[in-house]
Parts: sequence; C-alpha cells; structure tokens
Amino acid sequence: MTTLTEVARHAGVTPATVSNVLRNRGKVGAATRERVLASVEALGYRPNLTARALAEGRGPTLALMVSSIANPFYPEFALEAERAARKRGHFLLVCNTDDDSNVGSAYLDRIAGTLSQGVLVMNADLHFDDLIKTQRRGASVVLCMWERPDDPPGLSCIAVDFRQAGRLAARHLLELGHRRIGAIVGSAPNGVQAIRYVGLVDALAQVDASLPAKLEQETRFVEDDVEGGYAAAMDLLDASPDLTAIFVSNDFPALGVLHAAADRGLRVPEDLSVIGITDIHWARLSRPALTTVAVPTAQAAEMAVELVLELIHDTPKEPTTWIAGEPQLVVRKSTGPAPSRG
Amino acid sequence: MTTLTEVARHAGVTPATVSNVLRNRGKVGAATRERVLASVEALGYRPNLTARALAEGRGPTLALMVSSIANPFYPEFALEAERAARKRGHFLLVCNTDDDSNVGSAYLDRIAGTLSQGVLVMNADLHFDDLIKTQRRGASVVLCMWERPDDPPGLSCIAVDFRQAGRLAARHLLELGHRRIGAIVGSAPNGVQAIRYVGLVDALAQVDASLPAKLEQETRFVEDDVEGGYAAAMDLLDASPDLTAIFVSNDFPALGVLHAAADRGLRVPEDLSVIGITDIHWARLSRPALTTVAVPTAQAAEMAVELVLELIHDTPKEPTTWIAGEPQLVVRKSTGPAPSRG
Repeated sequence: MTTLTEVARHAGVTPATVSNVLRNRGKVGAATRERVLASVEALGYRPNLTARALAEGRGPTLALMVSSIANPFYPEFALEAERAARKRGHFLLVCNTDDDSNVGSAYLDRIAGTLSQGVLVMNADLHFDDLIKTQRRGASVVLCMWERPDDPPGLSCIAVDFRQAGRLAARHLLELGHRRIGAIVGSAPNGVQAIRYVGLVDALAQVDASLPAKLEQETRFVEDDVEGGYAAAMDLLDASPDLTAIFVSNDFPALGVLHAAADRGLRVPEDLSVIGITDIHWARLSRPALTTVAVPTAQAAEMAVELVLELIHDTPKEPTTWIAGEPQLVVRKSTGPAPSRG
Repeated sequence: MTTLTEVARHAGVTPATVSNVLRNRGKVGAATRERVLASVEALGYRPNLTARALAEGRGPTLALMVSSIANPFYPEFALEAERAARKRGHFLLVCNTDDDSNVGSAYLDRIAGTLSQGVLVMNADLHFDDLIKTQRRGASVVLCMWERPDDPPGLSCIAVDFRQAGRLAARHLLELGHRRIGAIVGSAPNGVQAIRYVGLVDALAQVDASLPAKLEQETRFVEDDVEGGYAAAMDLLDASPDLTAIFVSNDFPALGVLHAAADRGLRVPEDLSVIGITDIHWARLSRPALTTVAVPTAQAAEMAVELVLELIHDTPKEPTTWIAGEPQLVVRKSTGPAPSRG
C-alpha cells in the first residue's frame, strides 16, 4: 500500500500539500500540483475508495475520543473524520469521555486494541501515560489538532499552528484601529488554548510594547462554552467599559460574547468588535455572523485518519508529526473600525 | 437482576414514573413516590451503580446510531445516553450514519451483535428490515423517541408524544391571540416531524374550523436545519407579510427563523412570534431566547439504555413500548401577544 507520506517524500512536499492537492483545497502552485499528481500516478496511490468500500471493508475499526460531544466543534470534527474513514473502508466509533480523564482511561482500556485498532484523540484531558499504554497494547494513536507544531508531544499527531491563529485574529483588530482590547480564553492559563493568547500578545507587542501589560488586566480564563464567554464578557465590560474589541480564543465562547453585547445594548461591530478562532458552523449562522480565524478542521480530520491508517500498517520508531494547513482570517460582520470614544 | 419493568409492575405505575421518581424529576404525587420507592426496596432494584462500575464493568457495549451528528439534538441525546450507560457500567459507541441508510445498514452489519450487543437507534432513515435482521443476529434494538405512542412501530421503543407537543405549541400561540400563523416543518409531509404538524392542525381546528385550510397555504416542509428554517421563513414572509406567528416543528430550524426575522428587520416577539419544539441547549442560548415545547430528552435517553439492557438480559416475544413523560411548554422571549395590524 502506498502511503501519503511516501507520496509527499516522492514529490518533495509536506503531507498537508498532498492532502490539499487531492482535496482541491488551499493554495498550491501549479508546478507543485503537477509534481504531486505525477507522484500519485507514479506510486499508484489511491486515496479515495468508493463509498462501497465501507460495505466491503472488513478493515480495522477506528475510534475517535472526544471530551465533550456537547461542544459543537467535536461533532463537526467527528463528521469529517467519519466521512474520511468511510471513504477508506473503515468504521468510526465516537466515544464521549465527558470531560473526565478517568472515563477516558476506561474507554481506552476497553476499546483500544480490541474493538478498534486505531485511536484518534481530540481530548485535552487524557493522560499521556494512558495513551502510551494504549500504544503498547498494539493500538495506534494519533493526537488530532495538536496546538504547537514546533513543540511535538512525543506522540504521533496532526498539528495546527494555533499561535499563528491568535496572531491573525489580533492583527485584524489592530488594523481596524483597536487598541483597547480585552481577551477571553476558553481554558486555564496553562491550558490548551493558552497558545492562542500568546499569539495575541505577540501581535500586540509588535505594535506597541506597552499593550501586553495592559492586556493582562483585561483577560479572563473561562470555561470553553457559550455561558463562559457570556459571563466573562459581562465582567470585562463592567471592569473596562471603554474596551472597543474582544479577542476570544474560540468561537463557542465568542457566541456568548455576542449575546452579552446584545443584552448590554452594545451594537456589534459599531460599539464593540468580537473575533473568535476555529470557524465552527455556528460562526456563519450567528447574527451578526462571527468574524473568526478558520483552522483547517476538515483537512486535519482527513490527515488524522490517513496517519492512523499508516501507523496501523507500519509503526515507525519515532512519533510522526504532520502539520495541517495555515489558519486563515475569515471576515464577517462582527468586526469593524474602532469607534472613537470621546 | 431486577428490572425497571418489574419495579413498575410491582408498584402499579408506568416505567416513566419509576424513572421520574429515581431521577427526582417530573410531577409525581407523594403517595405514588412512596409506593415506587417501597417497590425498589422490596425488589432490591439498583439503578445507579457508581462511576467505578465503568472501570470494573466488562458488560455488553452499546451502540447509538445517529443520522447526523452535526444536528445538535443528537449530541445532546448522545451525552445523556452515554452518562446513563456509564452509570450502569456499559460503554457507548456513537455511530454517525451521515443521513445515508446504506451507511447505516453497513454500520449495523459490522457492529451489532459483535462489537455491541445493544443498539439504540435515533435515525429516521434506517430501514426497519435492517433493524429486524439485526435483532435476528442476536443484538437487541431500541428505537429512541418514537413519535407516535399510540401507533407502535413493531420494534421495541421509547415513545414521546410529539402530536401533543405540536398541540401545546399551537395552543400557546392561539392563547396569545395569533390567528395568522405560518408553519415550518423540518421533514417531508409524510416524514418524521409530520405528526407535530398534525398536533398544530388539531389545536387550530378546535378554535376555528376554517383555520386548518388557511394554514395549508402557509406551510413549508424543509430540511431540518438552520438554513432550511431561514429560507422557509423568508419565503413565508414574502408570500404572507401579515403572518403574526410562525410554528416551527423543531428548534434547529426555528433558530433560522429568528435569523430571518432579524434580517428582515422584524422584532421578535413584537412583530412576529416564533415557537419551536424539543428544547435543545441552543434554544436557551439564542437571542431572543426561544419559546419551545420541551420533550423529555434526558429521560428518554435513560429509559432507552434501561430498556436495551433489559432486552439483552431477557428478550420478550413481543416488542416493548415505554412512553416517556409528557412534553412541556417552556415560555421564553420569542413569543408575545399578537400585534394588531391596521
């Protein structure tokens, strides 16, 4: 079986580029595109089996571990992963571990290596020890959407540059003239979303060295949900009524910030700009539609399935890191020029 | 093992009442409550194992089939079912069949009777033949949230009275003085949500025999999502600008109706009242918060897990129907008195 890695090596590009060419997504130059397609042809790589593969397929079953199926990002990722697995003739079992690492550990014990040979992990709360034990029992493990491409986790992963996502969101606000910016982060200060906040600090420091210190007073670390975003926005707007923009590290709490603005009688974006990160489906659906930095969810899901199948086929000595495409700013209706406050 | 059915029979009540007493939910009289608790005691029924049961449990794994994990109702149900299964020491595998009955059939073939001994079915699109074949292979099957309690499906099920839900929604609009009512139904005219529309027609006919005929012109059958609700509301408001209320058979498209009203500059509820059915989490979170008729999702999930475990333990000759609690009107901010149009 030819693997995506082999195609990438043959063409002299990254796995993400191969994935982009095959899915007709992302920016790939014409010459690179032709080189990739030539490698696909030369090596006989067959990425997309037909839907019939599922009925015919008796290949390994894959499991996707998610910490909270009620957070809409996870079902969106699950949908893409299920489609990617099915196209390749594999079934995907979604396991919700309910934000409890003990439950996650029990699921891994029961499922990995027996009911499923490959495990995709979306949880932030599983212990690495448990994942390494899972590998020792013969199951392949891939961390999906690891947030720091330059600091690999010691397990095979698909990495997404979330620091860059934070920078892009911040630069957009700065270009619109905002200097009184609040921040809401959907994790603990040392948690999974902290690196997005680092990107914000990067961008502020580039413009004005005094901004990061001011920002510290106007930052809240909260639960990663609508209610968390709502409560933090109310609190921030009480403490600092002159804020003109709120950076939110995730779309889900950003929707709560939009609700808080509505309940305070603030017009978005005339009085207050709001930006999120991820581009979940609800970002498009909200009113006003949410400006956000899109991360490559569908691509990461497809790459995660591809990688775990490669690892099942042939486990390398060292963990593999594949980096998914760059985050992209998506401007909608929730951001606008900074108002002048008299 | 004492079953919920045996407790219900011993106490002379329905399984739903036993479930309500044990969960401290719903309206149960003091005398009934004591009788149920006495039966629980007498029969030694143990409904809630501790969370440790999961780690200790090597019991049957359960599967939950959903047709669209991207529709937020399904993850909410999955969360409740997972918690209920886990409390009883069982793992739940969620299978997304992506609105494709062939995919559903393939999942059933692969999983039921081998990877999981019990199958909870949320899909509207699985063929009954496939489910009956699944039972023949030795897996137990429970349809969750069957919509017509008085017309059982020939398979074991948890039934919810969705016709009554439609009636309650309609009566609320009628009591607020609305007579120019449009309807948006999130399924085909003979589809799974049609019975909710029948409830609306029931209630209108009770007030004025001429209303159902008028309603027919102002009904749209659409995709069960935000976009479907949005497009149908735009269409209805173009065709009949004098509508004062829109009945939506499901909360998910009802959120799209709120967006359509916002984009048309209509105030909700001053200019237009909107009501949904289900009470998904987003109904509380929307602005304005959505008035809806709540169905007993958590209770149905818990009863479905309980029933499938009973069926695994002892398969009866005839299919079993358990009826979950009655739908309940939940008044929030999206409905108000009918405006007088001059």
